[in-house]
Amino acid sequence: MNEAIDTVDYIGGRTRLYGIVGHPIEQVRSPEMFTAEFRRRERDAILVPLHVLPDDFDATLPALMRLHNLDGLVFTIPYKVRACALAAELGAQARRVGAINALARGSDGRWRGEIFDGLGCVEAFRRRGIPLAGQRIAMIGAGGAGAAVGVAIADQRPRSMRVHDLDQARAEALAARIRGTDPAIDVAVAPPSIEDTDVLLNVSPVGMLGDARLPVDVDALPSRLTVFDAVVKPDRTPLIELAAACGCTTVIGREMMRGQVSRMVDFFLAGGQEGA
Amino acid sequence: MNEAIDTVDYIGGRTRLYGIVGHPIEQVRSPEMFTAEFRRRERDAILVPLHVLPDDFDATLPALMRLHNLDGLVFTIPYKVRACALAAELGAQARRVGAINALARGSDGRWRGEIFDGLGCVEAFRRRGIPLAGQRIAMIGAGGAGAAVGVAIADQRPRSMRVHDLDQARAEALAARIRGTDPAIDVAVAPPSIEDTDVLLNVSPVGMLGDARLPVDVDALPSRLTVFDAVVKPDRTPLIELAAACGCTTVIGREMMRGQVSRMVDFFLAGGQEGA
Repeated sequence: MNEAIDTVDYIGGRTRLYGIVGHPIEQVRSPEMFTAEFRRRERDAILVPLHVLPDDFDATLPALMRLHNLDGLVFTIPYKVRACALAAELGAQARRVGAINALARGSDGRWRGEIFDGLGCVEAFRRRGIPLAGQRIAMIGAGGAGAAVGVAIADQRPRSMRVHDLDQARAEALAARIRGTDPAIDVAVAPPSIEDTDVLLNVSPVGMLGDARLPVDVDALPSRLTVFDAVVKPDRTPLIELAAACGCTTVIGREMMRGQVSRMVDFFLAGGQEGA
Repeated sequence: MNEAIDTVDYIGGRTRLYGIVGHPIEQVRSPEMFTAEFRRRERDAILVPLHVLPDDFDATLPALMRLHNLDGLVFTIPYKVRACALAAELGAQARRVGAINALARGSDGRWRGEIFDGLGCVEAFRRRGIPLAGQRIAMIGAGGAGAAVGVAIADQRPRSMRVHDLDQARAEALAARIRGTDPAIDVAVAPPSIEDTDVLLNVSPVGMLGDARLPVDVDALPSRLTVFDAVVKPDRTPLIELAAACGCTTVIGREMMRGQVSRMVDFFLAGGQEGA
């Protein structure tokens, strides 16, 4: 009859549920990070991985949103753009980016969407004291997270931004959004050029989960470069390993996540009323 | 950058999901008990509460079952009978009872259902050394769990069984199943009579979650009576409190759950191949 043996103290019938929706799902770090943040705030809540296949998304998400004890969802690859359609209202960042990574149920039952990736990336640079203003930026990946990072960095008044994506139309769309944010930025759609770049950003999934590829076709990187990788599993992607070996300053995906988690939990607990 | 602060160790991207589906959901004890059993077996798995409203059941359950990292579901009030329709195959107990409380995804992708409540109740009596053979049983509640308990107790060769349910047809159906199990048992559909009873079983939801009612209309109980209550929240229902105050032997819902959890986890981990 030992209670310590036959129960755990972190999940129960009253626990409020949150989920992260993605495909694949094994690489996500949101479950352990959000759940820790809920605990820090003394909330009986947990964030669980929800592996939804692309063909199931349209039928499964509305059903999940009807779970009476589910209060919010986080979206990751490949659903950040697609998830917009689930929100009754979009926050200020989401409207500019055309993607969300958080969907919160309001006390009125309405679901509100917002995207926090870009703010998290900028916050990671700020915490490390690495300037973005006046810098020459090259970024790879213009999907949901890429667009959010691009728009948030454009707000920081960089000198130039080169945007690359395998999907040319996606890259062009992000370039247009950046020009719309700040016409003073020199914007180009082109593969990254290491020579005339100060900050290299990978916001594509290249390097995730044992993928040995680099998102750039190089053997070495100049040590003056700052290299950021949004991938969170592994912490040290092939790109980050190469950058560290070449003496570059590195900023990792987990630092971006730290910047986001607290703001996203604010957003969830306020029912989506507290936007970006 | 302290990992101990910003993560927890009990949930992550690779964690396999299980859920308990019910309405209401706050009273369930499965999340903490099953999760503890998974941990004891060194499985990276968690069982979460899933509060599904009756009008949503038919649309939500097939969607949940398509979550690629969800391996099993537990069903509680009011869904044990309704959940049968979700199973491609039913186990031996479930076929007799017409209800399931566990649904497991097999490695072949087929979902198999079984009911463990009755086996758990009998196991609780066995562990306490309280005989059922030759006893006069009165039971209240002939729903999903009630039917499972009735059939499993009928296997133990009691002398007589009185079955009561507010839904007369449900009580009659269970009485017929008991007669089919063992024609030697004297079976009646009637409200419980304390005078000619040895074991009183509550398998109705009366007394759950602050419900101050007793499932029998009495002020006192004879001390020779053994009283069982299947309700798990609270541990000590008004019926159990009265029985204890009157000097009766009491067996509580948590003891029944202990008897079930280990067998149900066997069932889940075997993809529903290990039946009752």
